Amino acid sequence: MSITITAFERSPDGGRGLARDTRVRWALEEVGQPYGVRLLSFAAMKEPAHLALHPFGQIPTYEEGDLVLFETGSIILYIAQRYGGLLPDEENARARAITWMFAAVNSVEPPILDLVVARMVEGEKPWASERLPLVMDRIRKPLAQLSARLGAADWLDGSFSAGDLMMVSVLLRLRASGLLDEFPNLAAYVARGEARPAYQRAFAAQLAINAPRAG
Amino acid sequence: MSITITAFERSPDGGRGLARDTRVRWALEEVGQPYGVRLLSFAAMKEPAHLALHPFGQIPTYEEGDLVLFETGSIILYIAQRYGGLLPDEENARARAITWMFAAVNSVEPPILDLVVARMVEGEKPWASERLPLVMDRIRKPLAQLSARLGAADWLDGSFSAGDLMMVSVLLRLRASGLLDEFPNLAAYVARGEARPAYQRAFAAQLAINAPRAG
Repeated sequence: MSITITAFERSPDGGRGLARDTRVRWALEEVGQPYGVRLLSFAAMKEPAHLALHPFGQIPTYEEGDLVLFETGSIILYIAQRYGGLLPDEENARARAITWMFAAVNSVEPPILDLVVARMVEGEKPWASERLPLVMDRIRKPLAQLSARLGAADWLDGSFSAGDLMMVSVLLRLRASGLLDEFPNLAAYVARGEARPAYQRAFAAQLAINAPRAG
Repeated sequence: MSITITAFERSPDGGRGLARDTRVRWALEEVGQPYGVRLLSFAAMKEPAHLALHPFGQIPTYEEGDLVLFETGSIILYIAQRYGGLLPDEENARARAITWMFAAVNSVEPPILDLVVARMVEGEKPWASERLPLVMDRIRKPLAQLSARLGAADWLDGSFSAGDLMMVSVLLRLRASGLLDEFPNLAAYVARGEARPAYQRAFAAQLAINAPRAG
């Protein structure tokens, strides 16, 4: 059965790879599964046809035969469980890798999303400059804890897993802020993720759609 | 093998059931597994012994034999996969139920956490009153979408699942805000979750620890 995902017709980040379809592309490249992409305008994302697939009107979605999934975390977990290579076989190690997936989206990402809101949505508000340092400090806390746990290891728990894929993807959002560079082992961890051939292919695929075009 | 979870020695919510151990207790009650609880002071949560179990210094954790897990979502998924009753058997339906778990923690909960921050952490800041309506509106958006998807159904996708357990738990945080009552089908959905005997037992167990004591 063929796999189809959805992505932005034109990503708000202009091809920096921060749209969430990059995470799903990366997982599919890691497990060696080909996939098709259906591009959506912002208007199309809010239409009933897409809301039937994704109740929150976002990208990406994942279609394979009769199966329709949304939520990047769930899609990547499904890919990891269905195709080999992104989760350990041993039951306890597998549960720990899945733990890092949840940690990425529920412990590390929320304050990072708050930074996006503070800059993009509330950037012109009178409180923006005074509030920004508070938002940054709330990101530093889990980063410091993650840095302490990672230590000198290459990956969070043994070999590269779906947990690392998700954590690297979440941390990538921070590059422009400079926060990542305050934690050299985390910056190196992210660079290690980006250096994987599967990530490179995923990044190139989204860039081919989103790179500024002539004319 | 016996199961041990961690919880606050004294929950900041005074026993309203919003601390995340309630979610894990609920899952364990649904699958009928007995468990022990180790209570932790705020100081103990930041000590090396606990950080070895939970790198972000939070509760709950889950210990069963050699297995140590953190992150409520991961713990509940593990319980659901190991013991029956919280996930459908059919593969696609199972993937969809897991999707709702991720939707709860990554699409619905982040703006709700922002409301907690706006009130508890930034409640005395000069921007608090002007910013609060913006924060509330960012919660209304996914609630409206969730309400539209739920419609007149009892649960999000067929029978009650770990996805509903997590979504109800996330929405419960909103009761005091009044936001839930703007969406009657969501308020009824949450009430339906709270009425489950397993939830009642979980709630009572945390209340027994956290209820204000005489003296």
